[in-house]
Amino acid sequence: MSVITAFETHDIRFPTSLQLDGSDAMNLDPDYSAAYLTLRTNDPTGLAGHGFVFTIGRGNDVQTRACAAVGHLVVGRSVDEVLGDLGAFARSLTADSQLRWLGPEKGVMHMAIGAVINAAWDMAARRAGKPVWRLIADMSPREIVALLDFRYISDALTPGEALSLLDAAAHGKEERLRTLLSQGYPAYTTSPGWLGYSDEKLVRLAREAVAQGFRTVKLKVGLNVDDDIRRCGLARDAIGPDVGLAVDANQRWDVAEAISFLTRLARFNIAWAEEPTSPDDILGHAAIRAAVAPLPISTGEHTHNRVMFKQLFQARAVDLVQIDAARVGGVNENLAILLMAAKFNIRVFPHAGGVGLCELVQHLAMADFVAISGKKNDRAIEFVDHLHEHFIDPVRISQGAYLAPLAPGFSAEIHPDSLDRYRFPEGAVWRELSDANADQASVL
Amino acid sequence: MSVITAFETHDIRFPTSLQLDGSDAMNLDPDYSAAYLTLRTNDPTGLAGHGFVFTIGRGNDVQTRACAAVGHLVVGRSVDEVLGDLGAFARSLTADSQLRWLGPEKGVMHMAIGAVINAAWDMAARRAGKPVWRLIADMSPREIVALLDFRYISDALTPGEALSLLDAAAHGKEERLRTLLSQGYPAYTTSPGWLGYSDEKLVRLAREAVAQGFRTVKLKVGLNVDDDIRRCGLARDAIGPDVGLAVDANQRWDVAEAISFLTRLARFNIAWAEEPTSPDDILGHAAIRAAVAPLPISTGEHTHNRVMFKQLFQARAVDLVQIDAARVGGVNENLAILLMAAKFNIRVFPHAGGVGLCELVQHLAMADFVAISGKKNDRAIEFVDHLHEHFIDPVRISQGAYLAPLAPGFSAEIHPDSLDRYRFPEGAVWRELSDANADQASVL
Repeated sequence: MSVITAFETHDIRFPTSLQLDGSDAMNLDPDYSAAYLTLRTNDPTGLAGHGFVFTIGRGNDVQTRACAAVGHLVVGRSVDEVLGDLGAFARSLTADSQLRWLGPEKGVMHMAIGAVINAAWDMAARRAGKPVWRLIADMSPREIVALLDFRYISDALTPGEALSLLDAAAHGKEERLRTLLSQGYPAYTTSPGWLGYSDEKLVRLAREAVAQGFRTVKLKVGLNVDDDIRRCGLARDAIGPDVGLAVDANQRWDVAEAISFLTRLARFNIAWAEEPTSPDDILGHAAIRAAVAPLPISTGEHTHNRVMFKQLFQARAVDLVQIDAARVGGVNENLAILLMAAKFNIRVFPHAGGVGLCELVQHLAMADFVAISGKKNDRAIEFVDHLHEHFIDPVRISQGAYLAPLAPGFSAEIHPDSLDRYRFPEGAVWRELSDANADQASVL
Repeated sequence: MSVITAFETHDIRFPTSLQLDGSDAMNLDPDYSAAYLTLRTNDPTGLAGHGFVFTIGRGNDVQTRACAAVGHLVVGRSVDEVLGDLGAFARSLTADSQLRWLGPEKGVMHMAIGAVINAAWDMAARRAGKPVWRLIADMSPREIVALLDFRYISDALTPGEALSLLDAAAHGKEERLRTLLSQGYPAYTTSPGWLGYSDEKLVRLAREAVAQGFRTVKLKVGLNVDDDIRRCGLARDAIGPDVGLAVDANQRWDVAEAISFLTRLARFNIAWAEEPTSPDDILGHAAIRAAVAPLPISTGEHTHNRVMFKQLFQARAVDLVQIDAARVGGVNENLAILLMAAKFNIRVFPHAGGVGLCELVQHLAMADFVAISGKKNDRAIEFVDHLHEHFIDPVRISQGAYLAPLAPGFSAEIHPDSLDRYRFPEGAVWRELSDANADQASVL
C-alpha cells in the first residue's frame, strides 16, 4: 500500500518589485512569491503532488510555516484513501479543531489548507494520467457532489440542487469537450494596465494585446481618479470601441468614493469594475452596484471562502465574480463556488497572474465549462505574462485564448532549478541582490 | 530619545485538553495557548509592552511566526512617535502592502498585528501610569476619534458622528468613573457549561455560580439537540427563573438547523443564542434572527474585523455582539466596533476566557462604559476561571463583577516563570508530558 511519506515546503520569492510588474493601488511594490509544497509518496512510480499559495513577498515565511502545520494531517495517510475520497480529505483538513481557530476558513491558515488540497488533486490527476480539468469533467454528477462541503451553504445550494445542475450540464458535455480542445478558453489581459507603467507603455501594450487577439483589457485604477480618467481614455482610444475595458481598484475605495469615482469612469463603457472596496463588504458592494447600475460590479480574488461568495450572490452584490485557485480551500471549495455561481447565474472571470495562478485556475474554468455552467463565451480567464517560465507545464495562449493543458496533473510544478535559485533568502538570486545592495551601500 | 530595540516572541501552550476545560461543539480538545510578544525599549525606566494572540493549540507556532513578521515595522521606531500617535501606528501596521495580501485584515496575520498594537497600548499605559481603560477614558473625544481607521466603515460611521457620540458621552463621565471604581462591571460565567462536563458537574457549578453572584450563566450547545434540551432544563432548574441562561453553539449549525434547534430551546427563556452558524454569515444571522424572534441572536468572538461588525449592524443580524480583545486589530479596531455598536444601539457582551482574554477585554468594556456607550447594567463580560494565575495582574472578580484593574498597563504580562515552564515544546511542563507519554507507551 502506498502512503504519503513526506511533506516538503519551500519559501520561494521573485524580485518583481524591481520592475513594478504587478503594481496596483493597494499593492505598490510586490515581490511575487509562493509558499510551495510537495507531497511525496513511496509509490514505486515516484508519484507526488505539488501545490502552493501565492503571496506578494513579506510574510511568505509565515505562509510557508502554515503549510507545514498541515503536514501532520497528511503524512502517513494511504494514497488510496486520500485520492479515493478527495471530499473527505478536504473536510478532514478544514475540520481540524485547533487549526480552525486560526480562521475559521480564512486567511493564512485556510490558504495553506487549500494548497495542500490542491497538491492532492495534482497527485490524483497524475495518477489518473489526466489534467485536473479533465479529471473533474470525467466525473459523474454524484462524484462531484461528494467533493463538496455543504456546511454553511445549504441555505443557498443543497446537494439535490447541485446534482440537478450537474445532471442538466451532462447534456452536451462531449460537444463542449471537443470545442474546448479545438478553441481553448477565452482570456483577457491585465498586462498593459499596471499602475507603475507610463502612459506610453500602457498604450503600446494595450495595442499589442488587441493585436494578440485579446477581447478584453483591464486597467488598475484607484490611486487618483483624474489619472484613472486619463488612462481609461488612452486605453479606450488604443483598443477601439469593440474591445472590453475593465477596471480594477484593488479595494482602494470606501462605498461613497466608489460610487462617485465609478460614476465618472462609466463614460468609457466599462466591462466591469473589480474590487471597488473591501472584499469583506457584501452590503457595500450591493450598495455600489445599485448606485452605478448598469455598470457591472465584481469582486472575488480576496473573497475568502464559500460563505462569503454565497452572500455576494444572495445579496445581488455583484454582476460577476473572480475566483482564485489559491485563496480558498482548494479545488473542492472552488467547485462549490462555481456551482453556486451557476445556480445564481453569475458569470465567472477567474483571477490569475501572480505566481502560477494562471496555471492553476485554467483547470477550474475549463472544468466549469465542460461539466458545470456549460458556458465560456460570456466569460474569460485573466492572463498576465509573468513567471510562466518557472513552471514545468506552463500555460499556452493562442489568439487570446488559453489552450487546454494536456499533461497529467494541475500544472502546479515549479522547476527544481527555480526552487533552488529563488529560495528566500538563501537562493542564488537573493544572495546576488543582497551582495549588490551591499556594494551599492559601500559606494554611497 | 528612547526607541523600541527588540521584539521577543514566545510560543506558550497550556495542556488544558487533559481536563476538557474549554470543550465545546466545535473545539473538542483545546490546549489553550498564546502567541506572546514583548516590545523592549532602551528607555532607562525599563519600559516594555506585552501583547498576545490566544489560540487553542496546534498552529500556535504559525501564529507566533506571524507576530514575528511584524517586527520589522516596529523595531527601531521612536517610543515617543509610536505612543504619541497610536492611531497612525495601528494604521501603519495594517497598511503594509505585502503583509496585507495575507488577509486582508483577517486571520493569522491580522491577529498578529492586533497583538502588536495591544502591546503598544500596554506600553503607553505603563508610561502614563494608568490602566488602559483609564488611559482611554481620560482622552478627549477628538483624541479617541484620531485612533480610529474609518476606511471601509465611513458609510456607517463618519468621524463627525463618532465625535458627536463621544461628546454626548462626556456628560456624566466623572460619575460613571466613580460608579465603576465602587461597583465594578457585571460578569457572566461560562465555567459550568462546557460540553465535556457531566450533568452533575454542570448542576453543581451552575448553583455555585449563582451563589457567587453571577446573574447570567452560559451553556455550550450544538452537538446533539436532545442533550442540549436536557442540559438547559437542568441548568434552568439549578439557577432558578431570575438568572439569565445563554447558549453558545460555537458555529455548529447551518441556517435551517439553527432555526429548528433554537425554536426548541426557546422555552428555557434564553438570554441569547451565540454563534448559531458561521461567523462570516451576516445574512444567515439575519435570517435566523428574523425566524426565532424575540430570542436574541449574537456573534462576534470570531468576527474578524470592523467591516464585518459594520454589516452585522447594518443588516440587523444581531441583538447583541461579543467583542474579542485578541481577534481584531487591537484596541483601535475595537474602539471603532464599540462606537458603531453605540450608534446602532447594540449591547456588547465581551468574549473572554482562553488565555488572558478576561485580563484584556475588561479594559475595553470599562472604557466603553465610562467614555463611549455610558452603559453597563444591560451587558456583562464573560468570565471563565482558568489560567489567571499566570498573569502578573490577574482579573479580580467579586460578587459577579469585574473590579476595575488599577495597575498601569493592559494586564497582559505573563509571569516569566510561566513563559519558561509552558514554552512549547521545550518547557518543563511539555517535557514532563512527553516523558510520561513515552513511559506509558513503553508499558503498553
